[in-house]
Amino acid sequence: MVKLKIPEHQVAGHQAKTGILGPLIDDSGKFYKPLQGDERGSNELAFYTSLYSDPRIPSNILKFFPSFHGSETIDASDGSGLHPHLILEDIVSNYTNAAVVDIKIGSRTWQPQSSEDYIRKCLQKDRESSTIKLGFRISGLRSVGPSNKLWQPHRKLLMDLSADDVMLVLRKFVSSDGDVDEPDVVFGSRVFVPVLEELLELKKWFEVQTIFHFYSCSVLVVYEKDEKENEKKSARAVVKLIDFAHVVDAKGAIDHNFLGGLCSLIKFVKDVLAGLGDAGNNVSKDEC
Amino acid sequence: MVKLKIPEHQVAGHQAKTGILGPLIDDSGKFYKPLQGDERGSNELAFYTSLYSDPRIPSNILKFFPSFHGSETIDASDGSGLHPHLILEDIVSNYTNAAVVDIKIGSRTWQPQSSEDYIRKCLQKDRESSTIKLGFRISGLRSVGPSNKLWQPHRKLLMDLSADDVMLVLRKFVSSDGDVDEPDVVFGSRVFVPVLEELLELKKWFEVQTIFHFYSCSVLVVYEKDEKENEKKSARAVVKLIDFAHVVDAKGAIDHNFLGGLCSLIKFVKDVLAGLGDAGNNVSKDEC
Repeated sequence: MVKLKIPEHQVAGHQAKTGILGPLIDDSGKFYKPLQGDERGSNELAFYTSLYSDPRIPSNILKFFPSFHGSETIDASDGSGLHPHLILEDIVSNYTNAAVVDIKIGSRTWQPQSSEDYIRKCLQKDRESSTIKLGFRISGLRSVGPSNKLWQPHRKLLMDLSADDVMLVLRKFVSSDGDVDEPDVVFGSRVFVPVLEELLELKKWFEVQTIFHFYSCSVLVVYEKDEKENEKKSARAVVKLIDFAHVVDAKGAIDHNFLGGLCSLIKFVKDVLAGLGDAGNNVSKDEC
Repeated sequence: MVKLKIPEHQVAGHQAKTGILGPLIDDSGKFYKPLQGDERGSNELAFYTSLYSDPRIPSNILKFFPSFHGSETIDASDGSGLHPHLILEDIVSNYTNAAVVDIKIGSRTWQPQSSEDYIRKCLQKDRESSTIKLGFRISGLRSVGPSNKLWQPHRKLLMDLSADDVMLVLRKFVSSDGDVDEPDVVFGSRVFVPVLEELLELKKWFEVQTIFHFYSCSVLVVYEKDEKENEKKSARAVVKLIDFAHVVDAKGAIDHNFLGGLCSLIKFVKDVLAGLGDAGNNVSKDEC
């Protein structure tokens, strides 16, 4: 029986540490996500189950998804007994001091087939957050600075950011400290150059793929904040897609909702890089 | 006093010929669009008034907008007396036999600041049409075949098209006749090669512009169907943007809603071209 614990780096979604059913991790780099009881759970399980054997997904795109190790019924974090969990890659387990941001992509988080009640709830949240204005919202963020100083803004503060706020949050995210109005952006190009490359690779696929529409799915950006570890190749900043409870069949059209939000995020990342001066200029102009 | 008449080629919007207030044209290539009485009218007038002197708009982008000749109070088409009109370029006036399609871009037609009532109405229409599914809806289409055979599907038929339906409608649009299930697509590459080029140019701008968000704005595609005229350079297929009553300040973010819908349309145009075989292959792969 593996020893499971509550993840420190989870920045969005239901969190086990608040006493409710939430994900767990083990020491071998696995992330145990409780299956949601309704169709969301079965939808996400079905997505992961078929993803890695789907010949329509190009191999360079598979790296954007957490690896999947099946499902298992284990003791739930809330003490309610056995509960089925997805077994996924614990994305942050490779990092000594991971900085993480979760960005929910799309200006609409509900799929067309949703119930009226669900649409009403999502639409209200989309209107109250930056989702409708910016095409995404930051769902969570966590970063630990030099003297163990934690920067983890409350989700409610992150929900409804203006364009200027997003610029500041992204700049703080790549600073050593994070807790200042003029961030030092020391990790700026080391994070956002590879992140921009990956986002552009993802964009290229979203311009043509007519397989899935990803509603309420997030882009997770993770990088290594520990100065000693940061130079290692394994500590390269990564972009991952997570949360597939609301993925639906594309029915012949591209995912214009996700693509629009992704392009909006890309523009912010480019603007942050442009603001770094020379440090941000080592990405090809052709790609921008 | 110029002699004004009701335009034959108007495919969407309020139409004078149904007895209500609608646009008029003259013989010199001008299009008189009645100003809507509420803020929509003043918003569209303000947009056109500032557009051509706005230094932020690149010169290659201005060609996508109808030229603007001010506003004038003239006799309304519905006999109600004098009414203020925008004086615009009559886009189809250069063509002997213009085929026209009006495509309302975006998966959301309402701006965030709209009234609850307006949002409810738009959302209902967006859900009932292809807008939410495809990121656009075809608002109107008109094409006259060889023996003066008119193909002008009723707007209600065009509203809620599936991806397959859109492919068929676009193929029919570039056929000589239009009224068949297996369109001859004779105008296929002559229309969609230049149209794709223009859509990609527009896309490039929408990936970076943080000036305007264009809600409920249409892409108009026009081409010459008259075989004798079709070879002339002046008869080249064009892409224009029209309807700016719901343009709002971008507040620092790109127009992810318009961009997503535009990319969806581009994918359809590419797929139509790809289906033409060799005829459609004279567009650079790099651009796709």
